[in-house]
Amino acid sequence: MSENNLQVLLRRRPQGEPLAEDFEIVERPVPLPGRGQVLLRNRFLSLDPYMRGRMSDAKSYAKPVDLGAVMEGATVGEVVASDDPSFAPGDTVMGGQGWQRFCVVDGGRLRRVDVNEAPLSANLGVLGMPGLTAWVGLEDIGEPKPGETVVISAASGAVGQVAGQIAKARGCRVIGIAGGAAKCAFVKDELGFDACLDHRADLDTQLDAACPKGVDVYWENVGGHVQAAVFPRLRDFGRMVMCGMISQYNIAPGADAAGAPQGPNLGPIVRKRLRIQGFIVSDSGWQRYGQFRAVMLGLIRSGQLKWREDVVEGLEDAPRAFMGLLKGENFGKLVIKIN
Amino acid sequence: MSENNLQVLLRRRPQGEPLAEDFEIVERPVPLPGRGQVLLRNRFLSLDPYMRGRMSDAKSYAKPVDLGAVMEGATVGEVVASDDPSFAPGDTVMGGQGWQRFCVVDGGRLRRVDVNEAPLSANLGVLGMPGLTAWVGLEDIGEPKPGETVVISAASGAVGQVAGQIAKARGCRVIGIAGGAAKCAFVKDELGFDACLDHRADLDTQLDAACPKGVDVYWENVGGHVQAAVFPRLRDFGRMVMCGMISQYNIAPGADAAGAPQGPNLGPIVRKRLRIQGFIVSDSGWQRYGQFRAVMLGLIRSGQLKWREDVVEGLEDAPRAFMGLLKGENFGKLVIKIN
Repeated sequence: MSENNLQVLLRRRPQGEPLAEDFEIVERPVPLPGRGQVLLRNRFLSLDPYMRGRMSDAKSYAKPVDLGAVMEGATVGEVVASDDPSFAPGDTVMGGQGWQRFCVVDGGRLRRVDVNEAPLSANLGVLGMPGLTAWVGLEDIGEPKPGETVVISAASGAVGQVAGQIAKARGCRVIGIAGGAAKCAFVKDELGFDACLDHRADLDTQLDAACPKGVDVYWENVGGHVQAAVFPRLRDFGRMVMCGMISQYNIAPGADAAGAPQGPNLGPIVRKRLRIQGFIVSDSGWQRYGQFRAVMLGLIRSGQLKWREDVVEGLEDAPRAFMGLLKGENFGKLVIKIN
Repeated sequence: MSENNLQVLLRRRPQGEPLAEDFEIVERPVPLPGRGQVLLRNRFLSLDPYMRGRMSDAKSYAKPVDLGAVMEGATVGEVVASDDPSFAPGDTVMGGQGWQRFCVVDGGRLRRVDVNEAPLSANLGVLGMPGLTAWVGLEDIGEPKPGETVVISAASGAVGQVAGQIAKARGCRVIGIAGGAAKCAFVKDELGFDACLDHRADLDTQLDAACPKGVDVYWENVGGHVQAAVFPRLRDFGRMVMCGMISQYNIAPGADAAGAPQGPNLGPIVRKRLRIQGFIVSDSGWQRYGQFRAVMLGLIRSGQLKWREDVVEGLEDAPRAFMGLLKGENFGKLVIKIN
């Protein structure tokens, strides 16, 4: 094989915002598949906010990436060689791993995908972990009912896009929150949300206008001043789907550490019978992947599910793209096209 | 009838702590039951923290007591006269109303009680709204499993006593939190909790010792520094049963109003998959009263449910007793014996 395996390693644990020097780009020989394993040529790498947690050794739900190891991440690609009889060279699959051009994976972790159903990279977005996250969070916690008002933060992002469109398909009034006029226009005009508010402008005034009766479901991706503005507007029996709080990922090693910003007063939770619940998609999501994929493909066919990707070319640019993701510089689901 | 109807009225809405001048004690003629109604001679009045909310006209889940009206509250007593064929003079009933010696109630709201099953006043405590609150909150939100660690704030109070003993009966390790050595000794030695911590001493150190592996279920009655100490100790998939936050009832008209104290940072909710959920017992609790009462009577018979009442004699002392309740001066379920 003439190509090398280009890889992005974690060189150093970031303090605050990740820097270019926290990563290291290396070229190594292409690995060989072991027993039951498959060698993939990765075509797309997913970049997602959760990866900031993997760079830290603070206590978390998943173990951190070791220093000097390849950065973790989902990929899609083609089978190059296989010791698993279920896969043959040329198969297109999801379930690949790592910020790298090639990877070796146990065959049992891969899923063959049909690129006639959706473009390959969509298996990292609407049909991948972010889409599954949106679906699981609404199924298990948000439970949006027709006519309810659903507010989605980071609405143009990988998870927000899908969560909002699922809620629309269920007959909800859906209000997005995003950063800047371009993202807001996309969310409203392209994705069909009922409105999209710019969190860089006065959110209180915008929320008063967009949600005069309050909010039944709040999808939390960001925390900070957006959370502070939406929380008091939750209606009786409101649900807060705690998916992430990206505004804090660079602040504190553990968000409950001393010095972390405080949250809203919990008093109203009693009076309003609110539910605030966190979840991690990997706990139960992949066990329901078949059901999820069927629902998503149905919405795609009926024109109710659209998406936007932010495709960055070249693995070498993954660190820079990831640093931008944590600042909201991406526009849509961020993926790296691996050349 | 020779007696008058002694009543306690709301004279003024308190600003901060209620004062004696916020109440007015009057004597009025005994009312007559209308069609389908029953006239009761109240024997015991329940005093509960929720009544602070009824004195305020801030937005709430229930409408406030009007100025000049009788203070709201549950009572037990005897039927004096009845226009409902289901009840006859001399019947002992729960479901009475108001800080008053006599009341007139629709028969459909009353339940005959057997004083051989438990003393009359227990129908305001372990067998009444506070007990039902404990049971509903554990059934619907806490869901304690054998071996889990359950922390109960205001553990010697009307709700806390029962919640902790139900959790003990379900095989949990139960840690109470109460104010002062006498209450802590009672909770541990009389009620059989595994430990009881004094919130007036260093809670962090005590919690480290009592809950070395963290907390699975936290029963929230108080808020403030107790909440701040317990929240970071919640384990993965922990549940926070939001029953009340008495430390705030005198602070802010609405707990989400500007100036209310902030709560814990919500970041860990995602990572730990926590659930924080509020409830109001009246939403669904009374529909399950029969089931609840059977469970409680079973626990009483098996010696697994004990309780302590703080009985204050004389309706005239109800305002003073209620003011003390908000400061934790009561010891056990606070009831007024109406002479």
